[in-house]
Amino acid sequence: MIETVVSARDRMLRAKTAAREIALLRDAQKTEALEAMAAAISADAADIVAANVVDISRGEASGLSLALQDRLRLDHARVKSLADAVALVAVLPDPVGRVLDDRTLANGLHLQKVAVPFGVVGSIYEARPNVTVDIAALALRSGNSIVLRGGTAAEMTNAALVATMRRALTSVGITPEAIQTIDKFGREGARELMHARGIIDVLVPRGSAELISTVVTESTVPVIETGAGVVHIVLDATAPLEWAREIVVNAKVQRPSVCNAVETVLVHRGAAERLVPPITSALQASGVVVHGDTDVQKLGTDIVPATPEDWKTEYLGLEIAMRVVDDLDGALAHIREYSTHHTESIITTDDASADRFLAEVDSAVVMVNSSTRFTDGSEFGFGAEVGISTQKLHARGPMGLAELTSTKWLARGAGQVRA
Amino acid sequence: MIETVVSARDRMLRAKTAAREIALLRDAQKTEALEAMAAAISADAADIVAANVVDISRGEASGLSLALQDRLRLDHARVKSLADAVALVAVLPDPVGRVLDDRTLANGLHLQKVAVPFGVVGSIYEARPNVTVDIAALALRSGNSIVLRGGTAAEMTNAALVATMRRALTSVGITPEAIQTIDKFGREGARELMHARGIIDVLVPRGSAELISTVVTESTVPVIETGAGVVHIVLDATAPLEWAREIVVNAKVQRPSVCNAVETVLVHRGAAERLVPPITSALQASGVVVHGDTDVQKLGTDIVPATPEDWKTEYLGLEIAMRVVDDLDGALAHIREYSTHHTESIITTDDASADRFLAEVDSAVVMVNSSTRFTDGSEFGFGAEVGISTQKLHARGPMGLAELTSTKWLARGAGQVRA
Repeated sequence: MIETVVSARDRMLRAKTAAREIALLRDAQKTEALEAMAAAISADAADIVAANVVDISRGEASGLSLALQDRLRLDHARVKSLADAVALVAVLPDPVGRVLDDRTLANGLHLQKVAVPFGVVGSIYEARPNVTVDIAALALRSGNSIVLRGGTAAEMTNAALVATMRRALTSVGITPEAIQTIDKFGREGARELMHARGIIDVLVPRGSAELISTVVTESTVPVIETGAGVVHIVLDATAPLEWAREIVVNAKVQRPSVCNAVETVLVHRGAAERLVPPITSALQASGVVVHGDTDVQKLGTDIVPATPEDWKTEYLGLEIAMRVVDDLDGALAHIREYSTHHTESIITTDDASADRFLAEVDSAVVMVNSSTRFTDGSEFGFGAEVGISTQKLHARGPMGLAELTSTKWLARGAGQVRA
Repeated sequence: MIETVVSARDRMLRAKTAAREIALLRDAQKTEALEAMAAAISADAADIVAANVVDISRGEASGLSLALQDRLRLDHARVKSLADAVALVAVLPDPVGRVLDDRTLANGLHLQKVAVPFGVVGSIYEARPNVTVDIAALALRSGNSIVLRGGTAAEMTNAALVATMRRALTSVGITPEAIQTIDKFGREGARELMHARGIIDVLVPRGSAELISTVVTESTVPVIETGAGVVHIVLDATAPLEWAREIVVNAKVQRPSVCNAVETVLVHRGAAERLVPPITSALQASGVVVHGDTDVQKLGTDIVPATPEDWKTEYLGLEIAMRVVDDLDGALAHIREYSTHHTESIITTDDASADRFLAEVDSAVVMVNSSTRFTDGSEFGFGAEVGISTQKLHARGPMGLAELTSTKWLARGAGQVRA
């Protein structure tokens, strides 16, 4: 037991030592490394799938749910898509070295604030092998070492993927110690990772609300929280029916399992009679179960009575909650109470309502007349998405590569001293 | 006991409710409020000094050290300087509302990333009444509510200052609940503050390394760490004597009690004979005790033998450690082992050494040919300093008002849905 503890720490320390080399890599070297990783994943597909078969068999034996088995499973097509994703990261612009501030003091001291890698990024996530590859590629693209702690159910698959990526680094003359997995050290390893202040510079949990909550609460390493999305759309008194219907249906149905899908629709009382019947019908025609308050029940058909629990629920499926509110204040109060501060949108043609909504809603992304599904790093034009931050420190909303960097001030002088 | 616990939380919740109003204040309203606060502090000077006398008497009775009594003490002149500091913050530019990114997607959706207040800032600090006023003013200037938890030894003084500032807010029609103190709830209140996730948006500890370490370790609220400074100056083989001597003496002597003062000088072996004698003499002439390794002992006079403990020590006084290293690699290795990642400077005329130092030293501020004393928000031109961050997340180095803001994405559309 003591030996495994030492070893998880040893792997983290190796990542830290490697980080010095990785931080200094030039753009072209990182591109080459990522292209080598993509090629290696394709070349090693048979081994990776074989390792995955072992994990899946264990999962079946231990009663892993079919949904989790599906997320865990890698066939040749999925391995190819992992390699393709790495190849896409390879050609993204290098976020390191950007000059973010430049000022010369009266005494001639020249100050520049530049983007630098964090150093060592840690990630704790669930049994999803795509996250293993995704985070490793994004970390390397931004000049960081990575320590990975995936779900135990994916241990063999992750080990195979990490071994492949490490060999790819070696093949282009870069230290393989930049990519580490501590899966084999189990919960104790995860705990060590969360307490590795001074070794791990930032920890990015990815997965269920419960996992993220555990990491946020337990970790003494700074965390970027990527949280759940209880996302709201408000239909203001002036909401045009066409926009309201299209946006609500799109935000719920286009991909219901993700965090930027809408979960609750709040309808201004002045528009309820006009909007609730056609919008609930359109949702139901798309297979959505509508949970409504008593007002919605009166205006719609086949409405499931909503309970207070519905307002808190991230359905992540073809269900939606709908409530009639007296006015914009009522909508804002509901959002304050139940929002997870991810994304909220208002449908309105009234500029005053739009402006109030934009100013007063305290969420990472606040929208007017838009589907909430646009809260996404790729849609925002970042080229890659590290996650969607629901915290206010460091990064908020969709995170691109820039959010995997820190900054450093460089000061160039000629003997300046302070008076 | 249970009642006090409820009340600390109640004060935090009031700050949170108030934050909605404070976040929407216009620039001119915040200026007016801060000017009212400055005027009120001057007007209430007698009451504030009287409250301070009570704290000082208690401190004397309980054996508070003279140094801590001095930091705690407020006379009329010091109260005036508190008011002056608030007046200076009043005229600083508003950091809220700056547009940090602006992009229009192909579908016409207009995205803007804007600076917004955090909401509620918490601060845990020691018995220094100036921090009470300073942090409250900076929080308000950046549109935040504040919950203050100062040292118990300053409880009466802080209560008087907070009461004065709250009255000033009321006098200009702003809710006084934006400024809260939880001093009276003692350690239990501090603990509640550190665990008030969802109420407190960011916690800024200020004070000793021990205090900061406790907050960083215990808090589940995101923390901005303002850390200690074991600051290094490297004298490269090419270091000009004049620059080296002036910069080392300035960095140590100009104000030895602060975190950007130098603590350790690392001398390239190729320059040791040339530089150690005159620089140790100059330091000693300024009253500095020099702790040196065996090489420094041979070259200088009256050198106190350095122990490994010296390399870790932030003297914060007229003492300095000096060590001869074989080369730049030796200096970089020493810094990696002992630096607190605050500020390091190299004195050199060799561009290659300068570039390596700037690239490889992993500190908030990395300097060439400059006194480390310039690591300071006012010197950098920020107009105010919230503290100096030694962490990599969110803010690094001197923090101005901008670092007390978060961001929010605003999206303005016309019915856009995702394909």
